[in-house]
Amino acid sequence: MTKEPRLESAAPEAPLAIVCGGGSLPFAIADAVTRRGRPIILFALRGFADPERVAPYPHHWLPLGKYGWLVRTARKEGCREMILIGSVVRPALSQVRLDFATVRQLPRLVRIFRGGDNHLLSGLVQALEQDGLRVLGAQEVAPEILVPEGLLGAHAPSTRDRDDITRGLALIATMGPFDVGQAAVVANNHVLAIEAIEGTDEMLFRIAELRRRGRIRAHERSGVLIKAPKPGQDQRVDLPTIGPHTIEAVTGAGLAGLAVVAGETIVAEADRAVVAADQAGLFVIGVPAHGSSR
Amino acid sequence: MTKEPRLESAAPEAPLAIVCGGGSLPFAIADAVTRRGRPIILFALRGFADPERVAPYPHHWLPLGKYGWLVRTARKEGCREMILIGSVVRPALSQVRLDFATVRQLPRLVRIFRGGDNHLLSGLVQALEQDGLRVLGAQEVAPEILVPEGLLGAHAPSTRDRDDITRGLALIATMGPFDVGQAAVVANNHVLAIEAIEGTDEMLFRIAELRRRGRIRAHERSGVLIKAPKPGQDQRVDLPTIGPHTIEAVTGAGLAGLAVVAGETIVAEADRAVVAADQAGLFVIGVPAHGSSR
Repeated sequence: MTKEPRLESAAPEAPLAIVCGGGSLPFAIADAVTRRGRPIILFALRGFADPERVAPYPHHWLPLGKYGWLVRTARKEGCREMILIGSVVRPALSQVRLDFATVRQLPRLVRIFRGGDNHLLSGLVQALEQDGLRVLGAQEVAPEILVPEGLLGAHAPSTRDRDDITRGLALIATMGPFDVGQAAVVANNHVLAIEAIEGTDEMLFRIAELRRRGRIRAHERSGVLIKAPKPGQDQRVDLPTIGPHTIEAVTGAGLAGLAVVAGETIVAEADRAVVAADQAGLFVIGVPAHGSSR
Repeated sequence: MTKEPRLESAAPEAPLAIVCGGGSLPFAIADAVTRRGRPIILFALRGFADPERVAPYPHHWLPLGKYGWLVRTARKEGCREMILIGSVVRPALSQVRLDFATVRQLPRLVRIFRGGDNHLLSGLVQALEQDGLRVLGAQEVAPEILVPEGLLGAHAPSTRDRDDITRGLALIATMGPFDVGQAAVVANNHVLAIEAIEGTDEMLFRIAELRRRGRIRAHERSGVLIKAPKPGQDQRVDLPTIGPHTIEAVTGAGLAGLAVVAGETIVAEADRAVVAADQAGLFVIGVPAHGSSR
């Protein structure tokens, strides 16, 4: 028997601050970082993070808008690096109680809010870095969560599926300047749906519904979900993400599979996702990034 | 009192064949052409046209796939010109009973079916013209159905709305090569939704639903529905269309108004649509075509 390599580093490392939104991904990352021997502290966003799942981890609850408190507390805990992960719905400013540091930043934050999501997030990252916290991408602290190139499961796309993938990637690249569209559904060279703010799951439910009503009439599984980062997207805070629930939604939509950009897509609970895809007969493929026009 | 100009032409004209899909637009056009003194014959698509509304007009019922029968019957009726109007859902080939002329055309029709809707319709138009029927746009036989440039009702877009209109038009032009997206919703420079095959009404219901669930959080009416022809679209068979139901859906989605391309958009029941928009406080504007990149 060979000895397991020790993942822990010899010297104690400064804890990683994880600002934690909704979904299961933040916990998958917290676990991965912990396995590498680095301490973590969750800053769980009130109203988004699941309290039951937060409880076992070292954590603080973070109300939206308490930007100054976040920076102070992270520093007090000795954090010098931070990741922002999990789903957060764009809030109404009126529902956010602002602290003083946030109010000081308000003119800038309001400017940020008026652009698309890219602007919001990149503005927040800039503010944090100016306040001395380095913002990392989740993939930098837990590279095993990125989708690799090639097939992830037992099934492979057909030639027709590959054409649909190429078309979907080109469409997403084209829409990049409009800060919209991380995903599309293409079937037989025909664009069936484009994601804007509704999110991937809801776009896939739409496909399922159109199929149920006979508006899409293919008897067998056909069509591909294509997800790709928006060109110019800050890869530290807004990579496309897939997981078991994505497989479920793709299955429900009657598609043949899904394609994502290798090295630029996060997969949550990869093992469960691949098992689900294999069982449903779906392909899951990581395509090379240089295929797109970024 | 001035004498009304006579709309009837002196010599009896060959009847216009109107291939009539779903919705009320075909009847609005049949009435407009009739008012001009030209006889019409409806070829009502079985499963799409409303039998009660078809009944009062001279008509034949046309099953999908009876291309050869359509050409023969139109000729027999003395028609030399035809328009194709109304909504038709892309059918499953397996549900269509094909006649001989259709089967002869099948390799070409299958090729057509594999492209987007543009290809389908332009292929059909080509086939009809090769068989001696001139295909006209509804706007050529009833120009009063086109949206004119400028405001259609009492309300006007704000500066912010105008920026959103510019952005929406640019987005639609960008997506042109993908044969998708006749419409989008933009609010405060943020793209909220892009239409693919679901249709404008369903896209607007999605916005209403996202607003209801708090995913879009604007307290007042904001955002614009922008509709424009896809670049390269055959204007004889697939112009964007608005009507009272569009106003209703825009109202339901909580938007501030809608913008369409003047001279390249059909308005059904314009009077009722304008009254509805005025009552709801919505602007409706026809913007010049040269603003887009076609």
